[in-house]
Amino acid sequence: MAMNISDKKAQKQLGKVIRDKRKALGYSQEAFASECGVHRTYMGAVERGERNISIMNIIRISNRLDILPSQLLSDSDL
Amino acid sequence: MAMNISDKKAQKQLGKVIRDKRKALGYSQEAFASECGVHRTYMGAVERGERNISIMNIIRISNRLDILPSQLLSDSDL
Repeated sequence: MAMNISDKKAQKQLGKVIRDKRKALGYSQEAFASECGVHRTYMGAVERGERNISIMNIIRISNRLDILPSQLLSDSDL
Repeated sequence: MAMNISDKKAQKQLGKVIRDKRKALGYSQEAFASECGVHRTYMGAVERGERNISIMNIIRISNRLDILPSQLLSDSDL
């Protein structure tokens, strides 16, 4: 079960899934960032896999995507 | 599916599960912190739910617990 994954790869997988799910819900990046209570530039960096996102932001984003945090990670192959 | 959970509660749930699983594997907190490449005092704070842990540390800790990050969150009711 142990994973051997580089930092950037994990962040990129997570960011891509967040972007895909955000778009599927019809949110612009700016509107979604606002809903999550984070800055648009931060959300852009998250979606590009450039941020080591914290559990509290994972929870905030998951809430707005209407999925559990564990599901967001599972969908990101994490 | 959306969660309404305070910051501290989520961190405490996650910290408790990390502590329980770490102990179940027979690691001291110090040895486990060393295995994960973090400081003992940081791991203590994580287990007490005092840290907003990042995805990369969630991955490191999950690896050492031999579970997927998504499973660690799921076991923490997140």
